[in-house]
Amino acid sequence: MTIKIGVIGTGAIGADHTRRITQTLVGAEVIALTDVNADSAHKVKSDLGLNAEVYADGHELIANSGVDAVLVTCWGPAHEEFVVAAIKAGKYVFCEKPLATTAAGCRNIVEAEMAAGKKLVQVGFMRPYDSGYKLLKEAIDAGEIGAPLMIHAAHRNPTVPEQYITPMAIHDTLIHELDVFRWLLDDDYVSAQVVFPRKSKHAHDQVADPQIVMLETKKGIRIDVEIFVNCQYGYDIQCSVVGEEGIANLPEPQALTLRKNAQLGQSILTDWKDRFIAAYDVELQDFIDGVATQNLTGPNSWSGLAAAVSADACVKAQESGLIEPIEMPETPEFYR
Amino acid sequence: MTIKIGVIGTGAIGADHTRRITQTLVGAEVIALTDVNADSAHKVKSDLGLNAEVYADGHELIANSGVDAVLVTCWGPAHEEFVVAAIKAGKYVFCEKPLATTAAGCRNIVEAEMAAGKKLVQVGFMRPYDSGYKLLKEAIDAGEIGAPLMIHAAHRNPTVPEQYITPMAIHDTLIHELDVFRWLLDDDYVSAQVVFPRKSKHAHDQVADPQIVMLETKKGIRIDVEIFVNCQYGYDIQCSVVGEEGIANLPEPQALTLRKNAQLGQSILTDWKDRFIAAYDVELQDFIDGVATQNLTGPNSWSGLAAAVSADACVKAQESGLIEPIEMPETPEFYR
Amino acid sequence: MTIKIGVIGTGAIGADHTRRITQTLVGAEVIALTDVNADSAHKVKSDLGLNAEVYADGHELIANSGVDAVLVTCWGPAHEEFVVAAIKAGKYVFCEKPLATTAAGCRNIVEAEMAAGKKLVQVGFMRPYDSGYKLLKEAIDAGEIGAPLMIHAAHRNPTVPEQYITPMAIHDTLIHELDVFRWLLDDDYVSAQVVFPRKSKHAHDQVADPQIVMLETKKGIRIDVEIFVNCQYGYDIQCSVVGEEGIANLPEPQALTLRKNAQLGQSILTDWKDRFIAAYDVELQDFIDGVATQNLTGPNSWSGLAAAVSADACVKAQESGLIEPIEMPETPEFYR
Amino acid sequence: MTIKIGVIGTGAIGADHTRRITQTLVGAEVIALTDVNADSAHKVKSDLGLNAEVYADGHELIANSGVDAVLVTCWGPAHEEFVVAAIKAGKYVFCEKPLATTAAGCRNIVEAEMAAGKKLVQVGFMRPYDSGYKLLKEAIDAGEIGAPLMIHAAHRNPTVPEQYITPMAIHDTLIHELDVFRWLLDDDYVSAQVVFPRKSKHAHDQVADPQIVMLETKKGIRIDVEIFVNCQYGYDIQCSVVGEEGIANLPEPQALTLRKNAQLGQSILTDWKDRFIAAYDVELQDFIDGVATQNLTGPNSWSGLAAAVSADACVKAQESGLIEPIEMPETPEFYR
Repeated sequence: MTIKIGVIGTGAIGADHTRRITQTLVGAEVIALTDVNADSAHKVKSDLGLNAEVYADGHELIANSGVDAVLVTCWGPAHEEFVVAAIKAGKYVFCEKPLATTAAGCRNIVEAEMAAGKKLVQVGFMRPYDSGYKLLKEAIDAGEIGAPLMIHAAHRNPTVPEQYITPMAIHDTLIHELDVFRWLLDDDYVSAQVVFPRKSKHAHDQVADPQIVMLETKKGIRIDVEIFVNCQYGYDIQCSVVGEEGIANLPEPQALTLRKNAQLGQSILTDWKDRFIAAYDVELQDFIDGVATQNLTGPNSWSGLAAAVSADACVKAQESGLIEPIEMPETPEFYR
Repeated sequence: MTIKIGVIGTGAIGADHTRRITQTLVGAEVIALTDVNADSAHKVKSDLGLNAEVYADGHELIANSGVDAVLVTCWGPAHEEFVVAAIKAGKYVFCEKPLATTAAGCRNIVEAEMAAGKKLVQVGFMRPYDSGYKLLKEAIDAGEIGAPLMIHAAHRNPTVPEQYITPMAIHDTLIHELDVFRWLLDDDYVSAQVVFPRKSKHAHDQVADPQIVMLETKKGIRIDVEIFVNCQYGYDIQCSVVGEEGIANLPEPQALTLRKNAQLGQSILTDWKDRFIAAYDVELQDFIDGVATQNLTGPNSWSGLAAAVSADACVKAQESGLIEPIEMPETPEFYR
Repeated sequence: MTIKIGVIGTGAIGADHTRRITQTLVGAEVIALTDVNADSAHKVKSDLGLNAEVYADGHELIANSGVDAVLVTCWGPAHEEFVVAAIKAGKYVFCEKPLATTAAGCRNIVEAEMAAGKKLVQVGFMRPYDSGYKLLKEAIDAGEIGAPLMIHAAHRNPTVPEQYITPMAIHDTLIHELDVFRWLLDDDYVSAQVVFPRKSKHAHDQVADPQIVMLETKKGIRIDVEIFVNCQYGYDIQCSVVGEEGIANLPEPQALTLRKNAQLGQSILTDWKDRFIAAYDVELQDFIDGVATQNLTGPNSWSGLAAAVSADACVKAQESGLIEPIEMPETPEFYR
Repeated sequence: MTIKIGVIGTGAIGADHTRRITQTLVGAEVIALTDVNADSAHKVKSDLGLNAEVYADGHELIANSGVDAVLVTCWGPAHEEFVVAAIKAGKYVFCEKPLATTAAGCRNIVEAEMAAGKKLVQVGFMRPYDSGYKLLKEAIDAGEIGAPLMIHAAHRNPTVPEQYITPMAIHDTLIHELDVFRWLLDDDYVSAQVVFPRKSKHAHDQVADPQIVMLETKKGIRIDVEIFVNCQYGYDIQCSVVGEEGIANLPEPQALTLRKNAQLGQSILTDWKDRFIAAYDVELQDFIDGVATQNLTGPNSWSGLAAAVSADACVKAQESGLIEPIEMPETPEFYR
């Protein structure tokens, strides 16, 4: 059985996922496309030689009875509308992050999904599909380092453009850590604090850079994340989990060790797109397989809500300089 | 277009490739199967729910006009017969190593293929499809270490069974290095020497273990390969290429770095099947894509012949203790 | 010229320093000893075959005109008294940490020294003499990583005895980081905060373990130090300095890389005494050389005061859960 | 007791050892100096402020009854003469490598020493005093990797001057490996073979570079050493010992790990003088301590002879292209 997929939003990520489904993944086919810019949808269709129909809008696409599952890859403010619509139509949805641009929007989606009585939504957090994070999760779950007590992490970019401002360090950068640590630790956050070290001379006026975010979880685990988006030297994701009996580190990306020019070393990536490139394939294949077996297991609406609630508290902590509570309700039975 | 594939030999590797084509790869479908044990072919068909026909033998399978390409995964002594038959039928063939059990057999295949006037054969050497070797090849080709002068390599297994005897160190173990170094260096071998260090107490009576094979290439590059098949500690493939300006090392397989029990370290694989597991998918996908575009680019019949000729010289060197010449004819224009 | 040294306190560290001066270092000789337990002083004298006199107390020893320099290695509460006495006698003093058990006591020493008009005191902080920290300092000072913005550090012990209680994490453990970071960064602290992660099951009742101490400096550098004194796996000192253009890490202690038992790794030390063992020699030789040239350059009384003031604030932060100010006066010209 | 030392030859290494004894080491004093260039001896005396007499030649110096031990640091061709003279005078000798410029010369020294009935000679091979090689030796002796079967090694220099010609790869470069492997393995060589890989374009006309030397020991251990003296990238000493149960590698020299400019790496030394700088101190202190206790334990005359005999065979193997026997007599009881 081939899963028939409709894509809402054929910009960069929508086009890329369409290509992925068409050329790399198995078990699915894009048969419907739409975009606020219809030309974009037509171009993707012709570039990939798809046997697909281009719709006037997302609602028409969702209404097409041939569509088994929907990819919501339009701009963020429209996510909530189409995800809810797809849920109401009883269709599976893969929604790129953010699930919605506000926690309230995420809550609406969660409620719609619970009303539908079935988990239909996967959110596009790809890190749980990265082979390195998987090894880390397996080691923790196998008890190799004992109960986790702390995480020391870093999220570094070489540079960011002028429009990147202080709160984006949370919404666009930390958001990945906020999701992946919940998954790694099987835990929820209870508070956030943000401190601002001496600012790098390479940072623009409108961004405090670096920042350190400190999170506490229900189990009492303490997490510190350095966010440094003008670190110059590379795109570098670090994660070290300290447990009662040992410490496990996220592996460095595969690289040659070279001896050259009086240096023994390996390359560090500089483009974020290369870091999790393999994870995108795994993530979307998992969605397709989950639709086929009617059992989604990836990041779900509740993960999307948790990320939104946590991010809001972190931004508040940026502004207040205080330890801000993160008030997540207990995970409903439905999402466990 | 979906490539229609027939599989000759449904033992472990044949069944695994059939599963791979059916569940993981894109663009191909297994529609024909055969095995000397017909029950085996029927079992693979039903286990994977294939819409395929089971044939009485490989020749019948090849003769089926619906079959676009053939996988030869039966036992080694039958490879030559079916590869030649497929070539004569004008069909693409993916043949598991060895291409043939003798250099003469490989020569017959090469001649048949040249007579057919078209490259139709890919041999199942998977290392060129390993992400680590690819990085190594890219670094060499980009001139990052200057002209290669030496390779220091090792091929180590934790243990081997009783039936593994001295010449198998060449035919079953070194064979991968013999192929992959030709590809890495774009070069041919001119001589081989084998020395036998002090024997490990863990080695059985019928095997000299470890061994060191020293190869010289046309360009004058010197290669030493340690073969140590009872090294106890793990399955470990090492390759260090020394160039005029630097040295590049094959990366270690991805692993967590752990601090635990007074050790800072990472796991070494112990099962050879895990080491190149991702490369099998890439290799066979490349074959499928090559058939689709009518342009195979992987290890070819000439590679298979070179491996056979080189391996024969190495076995002779094991026996003689001398530096044995490796006489490979110039690569015909057809295979360049 | 041989420096004539008197040792006040011949317990473990006093005896060890006496051995060091006698057998390993050059340019000095222990000619006077005293201890509250006179037998101990006599035993050290005879064990090392010293040509030395045993005095009834520290004041008599200091008064001996043949003594050029004094080692204060008695118990902490007596440090202030003998350091001040030595200063007043115009003699050089090497005082084991802490310089005094209170900030007020350190202040008294600083005042006595300034009154004497000459820097006479070296405090026994040995990390600036460790070859790894020296490399780190050189890299920072050479601008290799740009201006430092953050330090991520850890101080881990496998286990601690029952008598080790929460404030000792500051006074006995963090005290080394408090000194070494001031030196590394050429900076002073302005605030401290302590958070308590989930407690390890291996920690005794009277100690919160692990702890994370967060420090801010005058330059705005943010430092986080994980203190984990029951980490089980080893004695492990980590220090990563994040600068505007790069990151430098304290090297791991020298160790063999082994491939064994399916592990690629190296040993981690388990006994803290092994970690900085070479630094003790360098430190005391530097003191001897400084006395000989009348120019001490190691950690001085002001360093001792700064450590005491900072430690007091950290203990207050442990108790309050708040961000506590660290009020260090400007470094007097005398100590620059 | 202070050992009174006479130094024959006050060129670079003689002056450096004199400084070492005077300023860094304990238990010895240089009281006598001589050099074919008397001015050189006077200059060293005055530069270091020595209370020493300058002699007309080495024989006068040896004859001085106040001299307990002699350092032979003049040019190689004169080593034999002065070492034998010192032995005959019953004095301890530290002789820089080579012990003598011919195997016959070494044999004369060995015979003189055996006739004297007492081990009086230490040869200046410093690698056994390097902390890394010591760890390797300890691991082997403790059985951590099981019985050694192979060594893979490399000795690389960035560049060499024009006067460095092919046999110097043995006499000046490999000589250190020839000594240190005998010590590491507690074994003797039985044969040598040399092969010449493709020559580096950076090598001068008169030197074959790189070279690979293959040695076999009495126990059957096989050693391959890459000698590459124009490797460009650094001064790099590699040694990997493969045993029946595991592999141990010589540690890299201590260095910071830096993340900078898209590279994760550490510096490689480029000046050979920095690589074993600490070992020179340890080596000469060991000689002084050995003289004091009348028990030399470092590399002895027999080691010097073994290095000379092995080097001669390696040079012969360079010329012949054959596997050349290395004929070392059984180690006499005297030297065990």
